[in-house]
Amino acid sequence: KISCSGSGGKCFPSQEELDIRPKVSSLLGKLVNYTNLTQGVKEHEEAESADGSKKKVSKSPSMGTLMGVYLPCMQNIFGVILFLRLTWMVGMAGVLQSFLIVLLCCCCTMLTTISMSAIATNGVVPAGGSYFMISRSLGPEFGGAVGLCFYLGTTFAGAMYILGAIEILLTYIVPQAAIFHPSGAHDASSAMLNNMRVYGTVFLLLMAVVVFVGVKYVNKFASLFLACVVISILSIYAGAIKSIFDPPEFPICMLGNRTLSRDQFDVCAKTIVKDNITMGSKLWELFCHNTNLTTENCDEYFLLNNVTEIAGIPGAASGILKDNLWSNYLEKGEILEKAHHPSIEAASQKNNLHLYVLSDIATSFMVLVGIFFPSVTGIMAGSNRSGDLKDAQKSIPVGTILAIVTTSLVYFSCVLLFGACIEGVVLRDKYGDAVNKNLVVGTLSWPSPWVIVIGSFFSTCGAGLQSLTGAPRLLQAIAKDNIIPFLWVCTCSRGPFLNVFLLLEIRFIFPSLHNVLVTLSMFFLMCYLFVNLACAVQTLLRTPNWRPRFKYYHWALSFLGMSICLALMFISSWYYALVAMLIAGMIYKYIEYQGAEKEWGDGIRGLSLSAARYALLRLEEGPPHTKNWRPQLLVLLKLDEDLHVKYPRLLTFASQLKAGKGLTIIGSVIQGNFLETYGEAQAAEQTIKNMMDIEKVKGFCQVVVANKVREGIAHLIQSCGLGGMKHNTVVLGWPYGWRQSEDPRSWKTFIGTVRCTTAAHLALLVPKNVSFYPSNHERYNEGNIDVWWIVHDGGMLMLLPFLLKQHKVWRKCKMRIFTVAQMDDNSIQMKKDLATFLYQLRIEAEVEVVEMHNSDISAYTYERTLMMEQRSQMLRQMRLTKTEREREAQLVKDRHSIARLESLYSDEEDETEPVPENIQMTWTKEKCDSEKRNRGSAVGSFRDLISIKPNQSNVRRMHTAVKLNEVIVNKSHDARLVLLNMPGPPKNTDGDENYMEFLEVLTEGLERVLLVRGGGREVITIYS
Amino acid sequence: KISCSGSGGKCFPSQEELDIRPKVSSLLGKLVNYTNLTQGVKEHEEAESADGSKKKVSKSPSMGTLMGVYLPCMQNIFGVILFLRLTWMVGMAGVLQSFLIVLLCCCCTMLTTISMSAIATNGVVPAGGSYFMISRSLGPEFGGAVGLCFYLGTTFAGAMYILGAIEILLTYIVPQAAIFHPSGAHDASSAMLNNMRVYGTVFLLLMAVVVFVGVKYVNKFASLFLACVVISILSIYAGAIKSIFDPPEFPICMLGNRTLSRDQFDVCAKTIVKDNITMGSKLWELFCHNTNLTTENCDEYFLLNNVTEIAGIPGAASGILKDNLWSNYLEKGEILEKAHHPSIEAASQKNNLHLYVLSDIATSFMVLVGIFFPSVTGIMAGSNRSGDLKDAQKSIPVGTILAIVTTSLVYFSCVLLFGACIEGVVLRDKYGDAVNKNLVVGTLSWPSPWVIVIGSFFSTCGAGLQSLTGAPRLLQAIAKDNIIPFLWVCTCSRGPFLNVFLLLEIRFIFPSLHNVLVTLSMFFLMCYLFVNLACAVQTLLRTPNWRPRFKYYHWALSFLGMSICLALMFISSWYYALVAMLIAGMIYKYIEYQGAEKEWGDGIRGLSLSAARYALLRLEEGPPHTKNWRPQLLVLLKLDEDLHVKYPRLLTFASQLKAGKGLTIIGSVIQGNFLETYGEAQAAEQTIKNMMDIEKVKGFCQVVVANKVREGIAHLIQSCGLGGMKHNTVVLGWPYGWRQSEDPRSWKTFIGTVRCTTAAHLALLVPKNVSFYPSNHERYNEGNIDVWWIVHDGGMLMLLPFLLKQHKVWRKCKMRIFTVAQMDDNSIQMKKDLATFLYQLRIEAEVEVVEMHNSDISAYTYERTLMMEQRSQMLRQMRLTKTEREREAQLVKDRHSIARLESLYSDEEDETEPVPENIQMTWTKEKCDSEKRNRGSAVGSFRDLISIKPNQSNVRRMHTAVKLNEVIVNKSHDARLVLLNMPGPPKNTDGDENYMEFLEVLTEGLERVLLVRGGGREVITIYS
Repeated sequence: KISCSGSGGKCFPSQEELDIRPKVSSLLGKLVNYTNLTQGVKEHEEAESADGSKKKVSKSPSMGTLMGVYLPCMQNIFGVILFLRLTWMVGMAGVLQSFLIVLLCCCCTMLTTISMSAIATNGVVPAGGSYFMISRSLGPEFGGAVGLCFYLGTTFAGAMYILGAIEILLTYIVPQAAIFHPSGAHDASSAMLNNMRVYGTVFLLLMAVVVFVGVKYVNKFASLFLACVVISILSIYAGAIKSIFDPPEFPICMLGNRTLSRDQFDVCAKTIVKDNITMGSKLWELFCHNTNLTTENCDEYFLLNNVTEIAGIPGAASGILKDNLWSNYLEKGEILEKAHHPSIEAASQKNNLHLYVLSDIATSFMVLVGIFFPSVTGIMAGSNRSGDLKDAQKSIPVGTILAIVTTSLVYFSCVLLFGACIEGVVLRDKYGDAVNKNLVVGTLSWPSPWVIVIGSFFSTCGAGLQSLTGAPRLLQAIAKDNIIPFLWVCTCSRGPFLNVFLLLEIRFIFPSLHNVLVTLSMFFLMCYLFVNLACAVQTLLRTPNWRPRFKYYHWALSFLGMSICLALMFISSWYYALVAMLIAGMIYKYIEYQGAEKEWGDGIRGLSLSAARYALLRLEEGPPHTKNWRPQLLVLLKLDEDLHVKYPRLLTFASQLKAGKGLTIIGSVIQGNFLETYGEAQAAEQTIKNMMDIEKVKGFCQVVVANKVREGIAHLIQSCGLGGMKHNTVVLGWPYGWRQSEDPRSWKTFIGTVRCTTAAHLALLVPKNVSFYPSNHERYNEGNIDVWWIVHDGGMLMLLPFLLKQHKVWRKCKMRIFTVAQMDDNSIQMKKDLATFLYQLRIEAEVEVVEMHNSDISAYTYERTLMMEQRSQMLRQMRLTKTEREREAQLVKDRHSIARLESLYSDEEDETEPVPENIQMTWTKEKCDSEKRNRGSAVGSFRDLISIKPNQSNVRRMHTAVKLNEVIVNKSHDARLVLLNMPGPPKNTDGDENYMEFLEVLTEGLERVLLVRGGGREVITIYS
Repeated sequence: KISCSGSGGKCFPSQEELDIRPKVSSLLGKLVNYTNLTQGVKEHEEAESADGSKKKVSKSPSMGTLMGVYLPCMQNIFGVILFLRLTWMVGMAGVLQSFLIVLLCCCCTMLTTISMSAIATNGVVPAGGSYFMISRSLGPEFGGAVGLCFYLGTTFAGAMYILGAIEILLTYIVPQAAIFHPSGAHDASSAMLNNMRVYGTVFLLLMAVVVFVGVKYVNKFASLFLACVVISILSIYAGAIKSIFDPPEFPICMLGNRTLSRDQFDVCAKTIVKDNITMGSKLWELFCHNTNLTTENCDEYFLLNNVTEIAGIPGAASGILKDNLWSNYLEKGEILEKAHHPSIEAASQKNNLHLYVLSDIATSFMVLVGIFFPSVTGIMAGSNRSGDLKDAQKSIPVGTILAIVTTSLVYFSCVLLFGACIEGVVLRDKYGDAVNKNLVVGTLSWPSPWVIVIGSFFSTCGAGLQSLTGAPRLLQAIAKDNIIPFLWVCTCSRGPFLNVFLLLEIRFIFPSLHNVLVTLSMFFLMCYLFVNLACAVQTLLRTPNWRPRFKYYHWALSFLGMSICLALMFISSWYYALVAMLIAGMIYKYIEYQGAEKEWGDGIRGLSLSAARYALLRLEEGPPHTKNWRPQLLVLLKLDEDLHVKYPRLLTFASQLKAGKGLTIIGSVIQGNFLETYGEAQAAEQTIKNMMDIEKVKGFCQVVVANKVREGIAHLIQSCGLGGMKHNTVVLGWPYGWRQSEDPRSWKTFIGTVRCTTAAHLALLVPKNVSFYPSNHERYNEGNIDVWWIVHDGGMLMLLPFLLKQHKVWRKCKMRIFTVAQMDDNSIQMKKDLATFLYQLRIEAEVEVVEMHNSDISAYTYERTLMMEQRSQMLRQMRLTKTEREREAQLVKDRHSIARLESLYSDEEDETEPVPENIQMTWTKEKCDSEKRNRGSAVGSFRDLISIKPNQSNVRRMHTAVKLNEVIVNKSHDARLVLLNMPGPPKNTDGDENYMEFLEVLTEGLERVLLVRGGGREVITIYS
């Protein structure tokens, strides 16, 4: 039913059948039907001939290893470089360094092939080749960046092939066809460039016509193109063997040890005998500007040296190999000289330079690596055909590795042959100037130079055509993934082609083949680098899905390959490398910015999982140093019946306190049975997350279901966070309705939570009147944050205003610190000391000392005695000489300050406890001990205090609260925020109600109060 | 009491008093007493004179900004480069590019100074300077690496000063003192190097003597050294102004446009008239090898060109600036030519080259940057004296920034002056060859060149001495921190000095000043880079402790500084840069390897906190793709009464399953009241952590206290993990004693936990007979892991053996997959399909299909019907052509496979639930729908099943369990591990006991069983 005539390479004998019983005849049949165009082209063809039934046939993947991978690779690999540049490279670098270059490049591709094989055999690879593999294993960002690099590489490879074909055409086949001719000595290269520009455009248009009108006709010649390559290479070997017995005639004209450019004269002698008269030859005329043998104006070097003719291709038996072993790099414009050839040195005239063969660019090992590398970049040709292969997972590794091995062998043997057969100056003569535009390889080959010349021309054209049809397909594949929005134009059928043509045309405006080769190297090397990276990352992460059937990979090999790629990039040209990386980086960022949300399950996600785990495990070594202490919040949110957040300002406050840094966990408890309330918990989590987005809290959310709210909170306080990412501070809302509510649970839960945080050594923040707290949009342009520093509780009171002031809402507020002195304290000295302390802490604040009557703060007696003594000790400390404040002191202090101070209001049980041994202060243990001895009197008065009967003490406490509140309201009524020490809860639950009342009285009449309770450790230090 | 005589700079007038009322006289007094030695030296001195009382005096930090920071900086900055290399640099690079070089280097140091000021003002900086600052803010590893770099830099700076002093001495002061003299044309530089070697050693020994015997005597000359610098610079300005009216006599002899070296002749003319006879001058003799005016052997260039004498210093009024604006880089060995000077080109003879002034190295912008940079590296001199300063936090920023500004101004003005006053060829003449070894700057200066020559010699010696005494102190400081064990030898008093001398001596064996300058640049740039990095990191992390009093920093400035440092490193010499980085990297790794556990509270910890947070927030975007699914374990451990782990093999199993990758959380519950049991929980956590170390489980531990164990477990299952790092699989031990125990809680807790995991959509693993599981030291060299694939439950059954086999215990086990077929199934086809499926999954396993009688597995009827149908559908799917398996299908499947399958044994409530819509399988939704229609019959039989009365169904179920168990025991009795689907728990709690019994019967007679229950999503895919 399917008509076979004129349908190109689509009418094979049934491939499956052939695979079972492979015969020589069928193999030949396959070779005849070989096409070097990828599936993409075929689809394109089908789109042209809109016949649905044909599609089925061509789409069934049917290619074997040989047809589908090996031969396309081979054809892509050999071509321009082998014929046009390899001799030159051997001449410049010498045989040994050429070996090194070939080895380096082949190693790089070999290692990349291994990585690629592993990736390709890790599951089904649809059509799309290397782009598909990288994007699916490293994610859309890397995939897009590398894919575009690969696309640019492929396009520029097209440019390379076309430019190479033009060079062959204009230099060796029909030099007459050149449009621009060199008019002066320095003009040769610019004329060539102009020719390239014109012919490049012409070729491009021709190929465009071919692609649009009928690839299928050209397609038939694919096997011819391939045959050209094979025959060309074979003819080199044949020529080399022949040269042993019968080296080809290939004379080179030398003046002294300098090579002369042959295109300006014929006879290689100073004089000629014409009509029996000895007269100056053309050469004489060129150097002396006369033919009558006068030496008047002669070039000095010409006079002093002889003109000789040597064999350009002395053959493999001549031992020329020894001379060609070592490198012979030249600067730009140097004359090609034959070493050890007789020469008398003399000054040369600059205007005669064009008579010699000059090197056209400066060469070095690095430059040659960049130029050679594109010749081994054909290896992706196999994997790009993944869609066409019957068993891609088997064919890609086998075919590609075989191709690389073959390639290396051919290149190694060619380097050796060229070095062994051809004279050094001839090798280094890039454009065949010394031999009148003969392609050196052609001359060596047997039976005819034209085998090489024509063969290389056609095979190069073929490769160019392949790039020209492959690149648009690649671009279309990338565009179809829709990760790079500006490529939308490329999703239509003609778009990519136009794009490629445009790019190529631009490239032809700057046509130097050398530049093309180097840029090409960069883009391919980038691509290889990422293939290796993808393999190494997945191997090291041991993703469960990483189970390649190809077993002979190892992360170290991939890593080595990656390193070689990187090294080659920088070796061949560090600025091109940087530019290529910059381009790739910009594409990456662009895709990231566009927010590609492709769920391809890339390895990068695994990487960030590993990174998170590694970082967390690193953190878990212990509590952070005082210098690194920062509040890590657990905000306990209350939800109402409809699962809405009751006080969203708690979140606002948390976001202002954190300014986007560090850990914030939002916890909430839902009452119920877990088995039934799971959905509800999920919904609540979503609500909270939305609220977090609104309030700009970056953090995590944790909703638990518990039978009792109090239990749930206890669990949250215990088990939130992971490893080093644990909260150290709990933010808790004030139970506003506690007085009105008849249900004591409302405030029992509050006090229970306070007790829990104390037991877990966590700091506690209770913002009161949180609804009056500023939103994130408000700005306080003036006003104060007042700190009432009554108890030194680890320094949190000092740190919190500083942190709040990092946020723009509070930035312009001023900080004031109030401290309470007894009548007999030296309050002036105290103020001075406190100011010094704050200076050392690098915190800007106004200091005020408030004096109160002893009786008014008698309920504080115990604590105050202790605290004031301790605080003044600390302040006195400030005045010690610096030399005594060794940093060892700091360490001792840090170690000993973990046990917390006995807290305010916890006197009921105090008698059973020992006097606190370790007190938070900034001096050493020795001092602490000595101070303890002096504290006898304080302990005495403390014993007096606790002998007061409970009721009496309650009354006295209330009195204290009222008096303190009076003072605070008096000083801070207009403050934006008042920070107060929060006393500890009574251990005996009987006092709970009094405790609540005490707090109410203490904070009455203040608009915004933040009650702060330290977590039992110093959180601020004067040391850097 | 303190004797003032002979105690060096230690007997100031009371500094404090002076600060309050500064007077001119006291300022002068300070200047007289200025010393350029750091505190370290003083301490060294004190160690010499073992007088305790003196120590107190010298140690009290007493220096102000001017004395302590500004002047030391200035002295360190000006010196070698300004006098020896700046003219040469201006000549080569031209005035404009010199400006650029100065600007670049000054920008770099300026930005670094800003960063350094911020770090230095962030708290008290004890003695130790930049090393202290970096190590305390970036941690011991970076601190050590950078500290050693800085030490090497300081040492090499010493070498630079000494070599510079020698160059001044031998070239300009007493050329006669040279020991080696150039014997040939090319010998000049090697002779100089030899001189450097000898004199370097001599200088070094002299300085060593000075340091050991009596720094204090030399110390008195510090102010003299400083005066030398100031006077020298002033004399340059004076000379420049004078040159406007009266340029100095400074003739240069030119041949054509080439500069002649003046040291081989006196008269600048071709001929001289002597005794009235015109005869060839010395110059004639040198070029023509005769004096009788024959031109026979004359140099051609000499004949053709005139000898002229031009003014070397035409003065600022001459307009020479215009010629010096642009760069004039030379290759090595090029002749210095004056542009636009008349010259007739001719070949020159190579043997006459030594008569011209040649450039001694190839220059370029990059090279000059590397050479100039060390001249601005003195800025650390101020911060290094942090210990000596009265108010380091004020003095360091102010003094250093002032010094930098002064420096820039001096350098800019000098560049301009040199460019405006001096002839280009003279500028480019590095060693003054054209002017017979005159220091060019000296000649310009007024009143006498000797001001400069002697001044620069002494000031350079002083700077050298300072480096020589500073470097050992730095080394000692690093050694004292004890982070680099191999430096222990440097902690003793003489060690560091010996070390420095040794290093310097080695340096003198390779003495070229140019190399010294470049290595120096590298080490200093490394140090600056890290100062900037430290500032940028801390600013960006916003550590609460980062509160520098110096406010004018910004992370972008630090970042820019860092970039400039990096750029300068690579610009001046990329290989030196790489070597320096390699050295620093090796030191870093060494310190890390030695495991420095310094609790300095470095910023790096904050960085890893931020990294962990960032990675976690990144992860939280949703559940991972099927490709990335890996078990994240929550292992629920039981503790006995003594808080020991009851079944530690659970941990062993977890570590084998994870092979060190991914997340493992070990959870445990302690029964009790949180407020009272906190300590117990801590102890339990420690026990578990120890056990984790023993069993090599890398992960996190979470112990919670709960009133009821069941509640605690429910909470753990809900709230463990953070963000994206949540467990997806629970590992639970089997309740072994459940039959014996009278307390039903033992197994009620088990079933409750199973229910919880089901509700939370988590996977569950229950290893039975866990004590028989292998330890980590065992190796199974043979045997099978048997999988009984009865229900397709997300693919976990396939994935788990693969993961286990990653561990060395299980590596050599073989995997076998058993599936159960009914009598009427085509079991051969089934086996084939299954094998294909496993091939696609890239899992190697043996496949076996077991046939069972329908009646024996009738209790599975409903599930089996559904499952078999589904499974065979899936297998059939494998046979579809690849083109139909588009990746869209994969996506659709992934989206729809989240709802889980109805589980085995959950039939009691099933009638109320809809038929499950989304089933885990690998085909698209359309197929799913069509398949649902076909399933009518299955639903029918299912209705039959549920109409059976409970007791009947229980009996039938037991029968099934027995029969299945028979088959499994028969096939897998010798397997190393048997994996089985775990049926879901009954929803009605009445059936709990039957359920336990069912599981017991099912697994009876098997040694090691792992019951597996999927979490409701596909976890394995055939796609890559």
